[in-house]
Amino acid sequence: MSTASYTVVGMTCGHCVNAVTEEVSQLPGVTGVDVDLSSGGLTVTSEAPVDESAVRAAVEEAGYEVAGR
Amino acid sequence: MSTASYTVVGMTCGHCVNAVTEEVSQLPGVTGVDVDLSSGGLTVTSEAPVDESAVRAAVEEAGYEVAGR
Repeated sequence: MSTASYTVVGMTCGHCVNAVTEEVSQLPGVTGVDVDLSSGGLTVTSEAPVDESAVRAAVEEAGYEVAGR
Repeated sequence: MSTASYTVVGMTCGHCVNAVTEEVSQLPGVTGVDVDLSSGGLTVTSEAPVDESAVRAAVEEAGYEVAGR
């Protein structure tokens, strides 16, 4: 199992959290996604490590940005 | 045709605007809904006047509050 943490910027409400959660959850191999609105923390759990570029793309698809890892 | 304006508080993003628009649009007789995120302005157009209590309830159902009319 692999866990990676990111910081997402631009989320302002629970709808934003849901949008990010849904997009990242769809990435192949991802088994868990946790998003914290107040800190912007995004934790991705997966069977094998997921490419950072894929996570970034999913967050952008939802309409937000990854500020860092 | 009737038009009524309200101020909604608590909306922070486009998802919030969509949620309010969807709920208010479902009220019987409503023919148009315009929501402005930055001002919180909600304009409801309808065939006949819609009860303020119904609009307030729809906004609350979406998760927000009407601060005034």
